[in-house]
Amino acid sequence: MALIVQKYGGTSVGTIEKIENVAEKLIKAKQAGHDIVVAVSAMSGETNRLIDLAKQISDKPDPREFDVLVSTGEQVTIALLAMALKKRGYDARSYTGAQVHILTDSAHTKARILDIDESRIREDLEKGRIVVVAGFQGMDEYGNITTLGRGGSDTTAVALAAALKAEECQIYTDVDGVYTTDPRVVPNARRLDCITFEEMLELASLGSKVLQIRSVEFAGKYNVKLRVLSSFQEGPGTLITFEDDEMEKAVISGIAFNRDEAKLTILGVPDQPGVASQILTSIGDANIEVDMIIQNIGDDGTTDFTFTVHRNDFDAALAILEKTAKELGARQVKGDNAIVKISLVGVGMRSHAGIAGTMFKALADEGINIRMISTSEIKISVVVDEKYMELGVRALHDAFKLDQAPAA
Amino acid sequence: MALIVQKYGGTSVGTIEKIENVAEKLIKAKQAGHDIVVAVSAMSGETNRLIDLAKQISDKPDPREFDVLVSTGEQVTIALLAMALKKRGYDARSYTGAQVHILTDSAHTKARILDIDESRIREDLEKGRIVVVAGFQGMDEYGNITTLGRGGSDTTAVALAAALKAEECQIYTDVDGVYTTDPRVVPNARRLDCITFEEMLELASLGSKVLQIRSVEFAGKYNVKLRVLSSFQEGPGTLITFEDDEMEKAVISGIAFNRDEAKLTILGVPDQPGVASQILTSIGDANIEVDMIIQNIGDDGTTDFTFTVHRNDFDAALAILEKTAKELGARQVKGDNAIVKISLVGVGMRSHAGIAGTMFKALADEGINIRMISTSEIKISVVVDEKYMELGVRALHDAFKLDQAPAA
Repeated sequence: MALIVQKYGGTSVGTIEKIENVAEKLIKAKQAGHDIVVAVSAMSGETNRLIDLAKQISDKPDPREFDVLVSTGEQVTIALLAMALKKRGYDARSYTGAQVHILTDSAHTKARILDIDESRIREDLEKGRIVVVAGFQGMDEYGNITTLGRGGSDTTAVALAAALKAEECQIYTDVDGVYTTDPRVVPNARRLDCITFEEMLELASLGSKVLQIRSVEFAGKYNVKLRVLSSFQEGPGTLITFEDDEMEKAVISGIAFNRDEAKLTILGVPDQPGVASQILTSIGDANIEVDMIIQNIGDDGTTDFTFTVHRNDFDAALAILEKTAKELGARQVKGDNAIVKISLVGVGMRSHAGIAGTMFKALADEGINIRMISTSEIKISVVVDEKYMELGVRALHDAFKLDQAPAA
Repeated sequence: MALIVQKYGGTSVGTIEKIENVAEKLIKAKQAGHDIVVAVSAMSGETNRLIDLAKQISDKPDPREFDVLVSTGEQVTIALLAMALKKRGYDARSYTGAQVHILTDSAHTKARILDIDESRIREDLEKGRIVVVAGFQGMDEYGNITTLGRGGSDTTAVALAAALKAEECQIYTDVDGVYTTDPRVVPNARRLDCITFEEMLELASLGSKVLQIRSVEFAGKYNVKLRVLSSFQEGPGTLITFEDDEMEKAVISGIAFNRDEAKLTILGVPDQPGVASQILTSIGDANIEVDMIIQNIGDDGTTDFTFTVHRNDFDAALAILEKTAKELGARQVKGDNAIVKISLVGVGMRSHAGIAGTMFKALADEGINIRMISTSEIKISVVVDEKYMELGVRALHDAFKLDQAPAA
């Protein structure tokens, strides 16, 4: 018997039928002898419906009132789920974020959880109740309703698991685990039994949309074991946990890719201190986030400077860069928004040499030209032409034999 | 400068456009120098949408969870209204029932307000804010969300006005005041400038659906001046207040009628103690409410007993009565569900004789046969055949010259 926190996202509770299905899954876990706390999202479509109402009033609705509005979405789900459990003869209680004192800061629409008073939940668990908590929301120290931003229900679940010292935090979603890469691109992509927090963070930030990044960080920080499972099919899912001996067997865990990038280059910049800063400050001032950055020094006293931004920001960044180029007396500005980033992720890179070489050779063998390279301790990212994305990902998946489970 | 509590019902906030219209009205009152607190209902249709969701899960959804569910309706409205005010440059704050500690008992779906902590609202008013409160909802002493039952937003407004000692509680609705009778039946029905709480209670319980009965009782008990006004047209509305000298000028305030009644008679019941109780207990046990009751004693040692019930309960009541008749050895049971009740209401009856005589003559002059009569201190009700309803109401409206304002 253990205390388990489960979380169901919007698609898992998108209809009354699906909510009844979640009730059945909770009862199964309860019957297995576990204490169950569950965090749920708004029914899919509901949050967008509420946002549309707000947008009819104002393009920039008041953030405090925006949170009052959108937090009703999860409140509807908790009530319906608790009803479904009660109908089946299982005692249950629903709670809004405020009711179980999920204390956050006052940063409306993107608040951070500071504390949870778990006493009320423990009382209910002792009475044999299934506790149903609204995800995505909390309250600040003044009693104002706050929300955690999109995907915040994952964070609620992890925070509940941390506060309650749960055995495991199970994130039910529409995929049955974390894969070596997107199965829509590589049909023989393999579900991973486990993955480390660090790898998951790299994969999440690189485009695998299985888990919300902040919830993974939170789980890592508070030692919460996370498991990703499917709401719609049985299976063990993927456990996200801490690095141990057994896991080191796998050198590479997965391949992430990101189609949303665009590349900008400023050529022939006088190579003097403060140039990089001047370029990036003007971009940052426009609230444009920069991802990869590369600087090459030429032999004529000038330097070339390349960076990537989100594709949506490409036009704005290009205009800024052309202005900066004039100020700096640079030779030329070039941009390319038909690129993708492909990243190889694995904690095994730390202790295994030759990974980069294998990676670059696999791409070269397919005639794929690498436009940029960037590395971290557990990741190697390359930028290539967009048309090579599928080919590149498949080539790397094959080269590292990711379709086969590593030897135990 | 005064403190005014306003309340807007579901049709007054049924669309974003209407919510913006309410914001304009609030700002007008604010610009006139008043402190403004406003209670609002769910957007029309929203509560029914939520109830439909619950009914898909269970015919009898858990009451605690039902309240968690339906209370989201008002929460959506307060957020949108506060956004609309902020957009116009007016500071505003929305509050759920729980946030301003509208403390109720724990009778879910029909809770009663016990107390309101008005300190937070006062703080906001001192800062010049318009305070927007969710109607219809509160929380019990354990922090559970409760609702007050349909029409409960009126009660919220009155309770806020009482707690804040407001100058006036203004109920905005889709009619521009209380009329002498339904203008759809009597085209020259006249809007009353004022009416007493007692008269309003009689009119409300007899079928004028302008105000929720409980809110009128509540206002009377806590000395809150109530005013009914239209959301959609300008005008002074109708003030519901305490009896004073000026008001006594009007003998009759209005005529109410109720089409939803049905009449049942048990004839030739042995006239002995306990018979009335036996008849009514069996009806009450079936959760059927009885309205008028009349008993005539015959001269043969038997009695006739007549009462009215809601028309929806007619068949059930008839079946019960036939069973009771056999047990009592009564001669016959008769029923009639093609009847209506017409009631003359006015505090002036207390000091003016001859009202009943004028009333019965007016009906007799039109050839309308009276089937039952029942009186209270400020009301005379008659039951007549349904087909005479419009004719009877018009005849009485004319006989008492209700189209003319009473002489000052």
